[in-house]
Amino acid sequence: MRPDTVLEILKQVQSGALTPEDAEQKLKISPFEDLGFAKVDHHRGLRQGVPEVIYGAGKTPEQIAAIARAQLKNGDRNILITRLSPEAAALLQDLPGFRYDPVPHLGVAGACPAPKPVGRVVVACAGTSDLPVAEEAAQTAEALGSRVERLTDVGVAGLQRLLAHVEDLAAARVVVAVAGMEGALASVIGGLCACPVIAVPTSVGYGANFGGLSALLSMLNSCASGVSVVNIDNGFGAGFLADRINRMEGIHE
Amino acid sequence: MRPDTVLEILKQVQSGALTPEDAEQKLKISPFEDLGFAKVDHHRGLRQGVPEVIYGAGKTPEQIAAIARAQLKNGDRNILITRLSPEAAALLQDLPGFRYDPVPHLGVAGACPAPKPVGRVVVACAGTSDLPVAEEAAQTAEALGSRVERLTDVGVAGLQRLLAHVEDLAAARVVVAVAGMEGALASVIGGLCACPVIAVPTSVGYGANFGGLSALLSMLNSCASGVSVVNIDNGFGAGFLADRINRMEGIHE
Amino acid sequence: MRPDTVLEILKQVQSGALTPEDAEQKLKISPFEDLGFAKVDHHRGLRQGVPEVIYGAGKTPEQIAAIARAQLKNGDRNILITRLSPEAAALLQDLPGFRYDPVPHLGVAGACPAPKPVGRVVVACAGTSDLPVAEEAAQTAEALGSRVERLTDVGVAGLQRLLAHVEDLAAARVVVAVAGMEGALASVIGGLCACPVIAVPTSVGYGANFGGLSALLSMLNSCASGVSVVNIDNGFGAGFLADRINRMEGIHE
Amino acid sequence: MRPDTVLEILKQVQSGALTPEDAEQKLKISPFEDLGFAKVDHHRGLRQGVPEVIYGAGKTPEQIAAIARAQLKNGDRNILITRLSPEAAALLQDLPGFRYDPVPHLGVAGACPAPKPVGRVVVACAGTSDLPVAEEAAQTAEALGSRVERLTDVGVAGLQRLLAHVEDLAAARVVVAVAGMEGALASVIGGLCACPVIAVPTSVGYGANFGGLSALLSMLNSCASGVSVVNIDNGFGAGFLADRINRMEGIHE
Amino acid sequence: MRPDTVLEILKQVQSGALTPEDAEQKLKISPFEDLGFAKVDHHRGLRQGVPEVIYGAGKTPEQIAAIARAQLKNGDRNILITRLSPEAAALLQDLPGFRYDPVPHLGVAGACPAPKPVGRVVVACAGTSDLPVAEEAAQTAEALGSRVERLTDVGVAGLQRLLAHVEDLAAARVVVAVAGMEGALASVIGGLCACPVIAVPTSVGYGANFGGLSALLSMLNSCASGVSVVNIDNGFGAGFLADRINRMEGIHE
Amino acid sequence: MRPDTVLEILKQVQSGALTPEDAEQKLKISPFEDLGFAKVDHHRGLRQGVPEVIYGAGKTPEQIAAIARAQLKNGDRNILITRLSPEAAALLQDLPGFRYDPVPHLGVAGACPAPKPVGRVVVACAGTSDLPVAEEAAQTAEALGSRVERLTDVGVAGLQRLLAHVEDLAAARVVVAVAGMEGALASVIGGLCACPVIAVPTSVGYGANFGGLSALLSMLNSCASGVSVVNIDNGFGAGFLADRINRMEGIHE
Amino acid sequence: MRPDTVLEILKQVQSGALTPEDAEQKLKISPFEDLGFAKVDHHRGLRQGVPEVIYGAGKTPEQIAAIARAQLKNGDRNILITRLSPEAAALLQDLPGFRYDPVPHLGVAGACPAPKPVGRVVVACAGTSDLPVAEEAAQTAEALGSRVERLTDVGVAGLQRLLAHVEDLAAARVVVAVAGMEGALASVIGGLCACPVIAVPTSVGYGANFGGLSALLSMLNSCASGVSVVNIDNGFGAGFLADRINRMEGIHE
Amino acid sequence: MRPDTVLEILKQVQSGALTPEDAEQKLKISPFEDLGFAKVDHHRGLRQGVPEVIYGAGKTPEQIAAIARAQLKNGDRNILITRLSPEAAALLQDLPGFRYDPVPHLGVAGACPAPKPVGRVVVACAGTSDLPVAEEAAQTAEALGSRVERLTDVGVAGLQRLLAHVEDLAAARVVVAVAGMEGALASVIGGLCACPVIAVPTSVGYGANFGGLSALLSMLNSCASGVSVVNIDNGFGAGFLADRINRMEGIHE
Repeated sequence: MRPDTVLEILKQVQSGALTPEDAEQKLKISPFEDLGFAKVDHHRGLRQGVPEVIYGAGKTPEQIAAIARAQLKNGDRNILITRLSPEAAALLQDLPGFRYDPVPHLGVAGACPAPKPVGRVVVACAGTSDLPVAEEAAQTAEALGSRVERLTDVGVAGLQRLLAHVEDLAAARVVVAVAGMEGALASVIGGLCACPVIAVPTSVGYGANFGGLSALLSMLNSCASGVSVVNIDNGFGAGFLADRINRMEGIHE
Repeated sequence: MRPDTVLEILKQVQSGALTPEDAEQKLKISPFEDLGFAKVDHHRGLRQGVPEVIYGAGKTPEQIAAIARAQLKNGDRNILITRLSPEAAALLQDLPGFRYDPVPHLGVAGACPAPKPVGRVVVACAGTSDLPVAEEAAQTAEALGSRVERLTDVGVAGLQRLLAHVEDLAAARVVVAVAGMEGALASVIGGLCACPVIAVPTSVGYGANFGGLSALLSMLNSCASGVSVVNIDNGFGAGFLADRINRMEGIHE
Repeated sequence: MRPDTVLEILKQVQSGALTPEDAEQKLKISPFEDLGFAKVDHHRGLRQGVPEVIYGAGKTPEQIAAIARAQLKNGDRNILITRLSPEAAALLQDLPGFRYDPVPHLGVAGACPAPKPVGRVVVACAGTSDLPVAEEAAQTAEALGSRVERLTDVGVAGLQRLLAHVEDLAAARVVVAVAGMEGALASVIGGLCACPVIAVPTSVGYGANFGGLSALLSMLNSCASGVSVVNIDNGFGAGFLADRINRMEGIHE
Repeated sequence: MRPDTVLEILKQVQSGALTPEDAEQKLKISPFEDLGFAKVDHHRGLRQGVPEVIYGAGKTPEQIAAIARAQLKNGDRNILITRLSPEAAALLQDLPGFRYDPVPHLGVAGACPAPKPVGRVVVACAGTSDLPVAEEAAQTAEALGSRVERLTDVGVAGLQRLLAHVEDLAAARVVVAVAGMEGALASVIGGLCACPVIAVPTSVGYGANFGGLSALLSMLNSCASGVSVVNIDNGFGAGFLADRINRMEGIHE
Repeated sequence: MRPDTVLEILKQVQSGALTPEDAEQKLKISPFEDLGFAKVDHHRGLRQGVPEVIYGAGKTPEQIAAIARAQLKNGDRNILITRLSPEAAALLQDLPGFRYDPVPHLGVAGACPAPKPVGRVVVACAGTSDLPVAEEAAQTAEALGSRVERLTDVGVAGLQRLLAHVEDLAAARVVVAVAGMEGALASVIGGLCACPVIAVPTSVGYGANFGGLSALLSMLNSCASGVSVVNIDNGFGAGFLADRINRMEGIHE
Repeated sequence: MRPDTVLEILKQVQSGALTPEDAEQKLKISPFEDLGFAKVDHHRGLRQGVPEVIYGAGKTPEQIAAIARAQLKNGDRNILITRLSPEAAALLQDLPGFRYDPVPHLGVAGACPAPKPVGRVVVACAGTSDLPVAEEAAQTAEALGSRVERLTDVGVAGLQRLLAHVEDLAAARVVVAVAGMEGALASVIGGLCACPVIAVPTSVGYGANFGGLSALLSMLNSCASGVSVVNIDNGFGAGFLADRINRMEGIHE
Repeated sequence: MRPDTVLEILKQVQSGALTPEDAEQKLKISPFEDLGFAKVDHHRGLRQGVPEVIYGAGKTPEQIAAIARAQLKNGDRNILITRLSPEAAALLQDLPGFRYDPVPHLGVAGACPAPKPVGRVVVACAGTSDLPVAEEAAQTAEALGSRVERLTDVGVAGLQRLLAHVEDLAAARVVVAVAGMEGALASVIGGLCACPVIAVPTSVGYGANFGGLSALLSMLNSCASGVSVVNIDNGFGAGFLADRINRMEGIHE
Repeated sequence: MRPDTVLEILKQVQSGALTPEDAEQKLKISPFEDLGFAKVDHHRGLRQGVPEVIYGAGKTPEQIAAIARAQLKNGDRNILITRLSPEAAALLQDLPGFRYDPVPHLGVAGACPAPKPVGRVVVACAGTSDLPVAEEAAQTAEALGSRVERLTDVGVAGLQRLLAHVEDLAAARVVVAVAGMEGALASVIGGLCACPVIAVPTSVGYGANFGGLSALLSMLNSCASGVSVVNIDNGFGAGFLADRINRMEGIHE
């Protein structure tokens, strides 16, 4: 609830337009809908500028569908469903405007066209095996309204592949660096860019990568400034944050 | 080296203003100064928009002083020295314009006044014991030109302390959330803000915090979107990135 | 064996009602039944106030059935079987009064009605994906005689969902806080409540949650007082302890 | 803020006793005092039934003294200061009624006598080396108003030492089990008691105890029901929770 | 090669019974048979008193059969095959005297009767779910010639079940203590026995048992003297060592 | 790009054979082919002396085939595909000269015969279960042109099996030591050899081997000099490096 | 308490020599002395065949002296004090017959001569830096009555140093293998011996030895049979167990 | 012992030049000198081509001096002492030709001049704080006879510093890559070089570098081929191996 609303409510009480009891009710009213197994947050769009995103893992298709329908009924235009298995996606075909990309395990519901893309988010990914995570980042940012350029297979073991794209990096407003194994891509990109860099460690690799731990620690310890990190394989989180940074306005003081 | 420079050099070769040998030299010329024990990167300011920062840990005061002097000679106006012990700071008093704050272990050299602060970075910190890291973030962002507001001791165990500042959070362009122990502050702030949130886990705590691991994992697994994480106790990295995001310009397409 | 029994036995020896040899036998007699693969503890009900609970994982359906039957024969009224797979449950339909809930993987045997529920245990759970663990806690406490209120999907990324239930929390005698990912729910609830809070980390999440480690460490390092923790995904343990605390009597000195 | 207060404020607005602007101020007013480096929570006593406790580690003696004075001024009678080094304690002698015990590193300020102890908390500790943590638990519970019995050096390698106190355990309303090394004490006590057991792993040991990890994992995996765990060496947390459970009232429905 | 053999060979050279070249060959001759994928150690029986044991995991049934046949041809009477899946066992029915127990995943080949069992090895196991590991230990020791008594389901959460067997423990020459979860059984038994105790942590449990780590660390940190530990789930290793200790002769000086 | 090429390009500009614009293009031209999902590095052969190797895990058979075809078209003679599942291999039969070995999960494409093997690489492996990793190393080195001798099942628990091959070790130019479990083979070989030893920890084992961690740490801490380590199960990396060392030329100064 | 004592007590009750109340007292009487901070177990000598050993770490010299005096008064002849700092040892000079060895940090009190040494315990240690732990093992076994032979600096990187002592190993009744770094000594010795081998990992090393973890995991995963492991740096535990095994009697059936 | 020596000894026996008993003695004679606390390996020079190196950590200055003197007496010309504290070095001034460099904590004894340096080892180090480890590597290789070029402060966050030295890397026979924090230097160098690369992770950094774990895992997971890894901070091991590889001869078949 925004503070001005509180003041507004109080003024309605003063003017008699609202009884104290009703006002108390309003002040406490929860800006979400309770489905029993989930509380759909209808104000997040207002509070955070984007619709709620459904984390698909660990939910039944029925639960996902119910949450999505409640959101669409509430006026949300496009709903992202992350970590959605192909099996669950097959059961969601009835959702309005549903489409599914099995590479990033990402579903979208909602009939409205996506916003006109703006800005310049670069999603760079170290190897072909990192593509699912990179696509989750790229498609998330696109779904939220950002323009995305993809640099694929630019791992540091063949530096010239990355250096060929130095201009792309220089033009970016924000870069998402996706890498598994030793995750060195984040530091190299961090050293080349003057924009924020969001590093996404992936679980790609084996043995002493310990499910992505190697890339995660590598990125957290980056000697390049301007780099921050999200969870292992969290392409969604990186794409979400990249879009948020990309669409920042200038300072007006 | 920026691509346009390459083209410029080539044109000088074509025009005879430059021999191929000299051009090759120029193309290879390293934009840094080699002090033997360190290579001072004089172009980072151009490339990344800010002067190089000296990581003080593991360097002798003599090495720090030499690097700082090389940078000042090169035209840098203000130089940050992080993780600087009071003992080492005492030996750096001769550096032009040197001042030192023992709380964040941060030194600054350079005679010029700091840039006029702009924007609105909020540095929120969970407990009094987290202050050194929070100050490192705040003072770094300030040294780079950002305006910073501090919210101290707003840990989630007394939510009303944080909720009293909801308007401050709403007005921020970027929030730095500093917390040790369970690091829950990042998620709570992440849910309240529509701007990028940079989470800094600290090593404050004992036992099963394992030197900051608990807060780190907590922040990496944040269920709030828009949150990214830097290394444990890395106030500098958060302040640097916060400044970079804060001073972003709007999209002009 | 309770000390008064020892004295009683000794008095019977003194009075000649018992020979020393028989008394020694009585003193050593083990209050359990040996099934070969398991020793069924028939006195736990007396000693601890509740019937033994069968940990279903790693036992064959035949072993589970045999243990349950031995308990029922011994007079236990209701028997809990935790971590029971649907496949094993299907083979236990012959047990008297058997019913099974696949969400928490919980079986109950025994024909008697549950005790009249008393008290007020709140089971709060951060996300829909945490429901199986939360239900294990809730149904365990209910089976043992507690009244349980459920707060579902009240994770800290949308604080208003939790704050709408502050009165429910205030009225609780004990709260069970179930959360995966960053597990921040425990600290936030811990700061809002004056009653004991039992935190249950879940393995919900991915990447750097390392199978629930992130939530576990987060909860162990809670900056809120009055919070204690059980094993990852141990809904049963939390429900059992919640019931025990809930049904405490007042101090009579 | 308690809901009834909100209603009260709204009624004052309705009656004209309060302007909406003042009411808004009141609604937002934070029930804490801001010392700059700390926000002293003056309502925690009301909200949680006990005064705030000062976590001494990482705070300067000056900061501790200022927080304590603010609390005493606010009416708190007794203030606990945990993890207080002897050096810092020496600088706090001016606090009213200050006394310090170096074994548990615990300071108390406040001139009023402790409350009349009630209930029966048993603090059992496995070895002499675990005494500092056990004393932190015991003295915390005592400072808050509980009666505490101590069982010292009752580790499981000499079971008869513990079994000699079975009656003490049976009479307890809550037991705190403090153990380092393999931490088996918690499970053995858990099997003997029908009351809640709070397990405190300590960092006592060496090698593969990894700073208390062995005892922590052992206690989290206890096969005994009714056991919950706090952080390694967190005697304060256990004592606080033990007191809270000990002073629970009976159910009145 | 035993030193006396070297001397013998040298004497044969001196006497002319052996050429230096043949002697060198003999000195180098490897007391094993090379199957290409495995080197079967035919002297281990002599060197260590027992036949080689085949570790079945990661070997094809064909490889296992070939190794077993080479051993039997070499005169081994009974061959143990550990970690043998039921599928692989089904393919080994042709081995002379083959029999298989699916509980401990243990196969034995060889037509000769087992040696007459001697001594008194006690294999104590905490819970029914630990039975496969306990049986691996028990059957290994039996196959090697020890007499084994089994104590099943004597976990410390119901101490009376273990205390009822104190006499069995007192009569043992060596005890194998098998436990998962918190692994406290080893310490309690260690405190009750005056004979060597071999602790076997199992992976039984979930969550913070981390695949047996909790029991492993617990046992390594046992406060009871006389306890040593083998790998998680290594029933074979414990049974092998128990037999070795059990069959020790007295000191004759 | 090699420095001489830069000079050459500049001279062509000077001579007018190249316009500055074309030269800039040439200087930036990336020596790889972009397939969209992968950038095939056609110069790695020149730069590193060997063709690119395809990491098969996490790539679809279609992606693998496309990369391989691009390489073959580019003139590569033999292409290694590592971590290739039998299922994927079945779909690659159309590749020119494709053959597959399911033991090391290694595919090779390319019609040309392998180079004449030179040198003497010894691949020693501790147990039969380590064979897949050892074969990956051996076949990789062979595919690149090295002669390889295999020592199988020479684990340290039967030292005589290894000591029988001391002469083979002494004659090696480089040894690859492959071992799981405790990984002691690397240290023992390291003490016996005067050539470089490459240690490959494997994930063979169970329990406290934690997926190969035990062998990895063991090898990293080898008290023998001259030993370096590659990732767990990374037979390819060891074979690649062994070949590189094996084919080193002598110093000509 | 031994079962026969129970019967004896009961018979005294029957005969009237004891009242039931006194008998109950006797049955409960704890065979230890309570010093407040410690419970001295006076029956351990009877129960386990050796006097109690004092773990010196974390105890004050005063506490150690009091425990030792209570034991000596009780009739113990020799008392071991482990992990005793030189500073604490200096304060214990008044204890009867006190002597201290700073290398293993081991103190002994008691005026009686040590028992005549029997058997043949070999303590083998990998490097000079492991000597303190090896000496703790050796001196512990000696203090308890075993004859000990020491093999120092026989690490596997110079196998001939160990192989020169194969006869010593062959003659041992039990071997203690002490090693840090990669801990390979245990496996090599395990393969050479037919007697029980007790492996002691030490914290000697740096970097990825992680405080002894590398040697610990290595030893737990030993591919040699007959090896068991004690805690990192636990020379005492190994020496205690070695003595216990060494002094085993033969089987008399 | 080399096989030809065995044959030689046998021939002497055959010829009567040696009695079997003397020959047995010779065959068993250990090519080391036993100082009690250490076994000095006088044949390692022959066996491995270099003198033994003394690991200084955990040894007293007296022990180090005695070992060094035994080696010098035995004919070793130059002796390396690693991990030597300045305090210990001060006590070793009497050793012939002793000199000490406090940066890498490296001592050298022996009066002879170092061998004429050959080859081309490049030691590249990421930051100034990594210098001690890099110097340990460089000086070790130099002491053993290699020519070393140092590239200091070439971390990947300022790629142009490294790229300016591409020709140095191209000319190397072997590269040692030393880096802390994220350790990305190894991968980038690995991608640029066609020679073996030895990666040395350092403990430089803080927080989530966990004592060098981040760099270690990063290097083990390097996506560049031809890279192997030594222990954290093990400059000596890298320098030793680099020298061994550098001085390899060409293949003569």
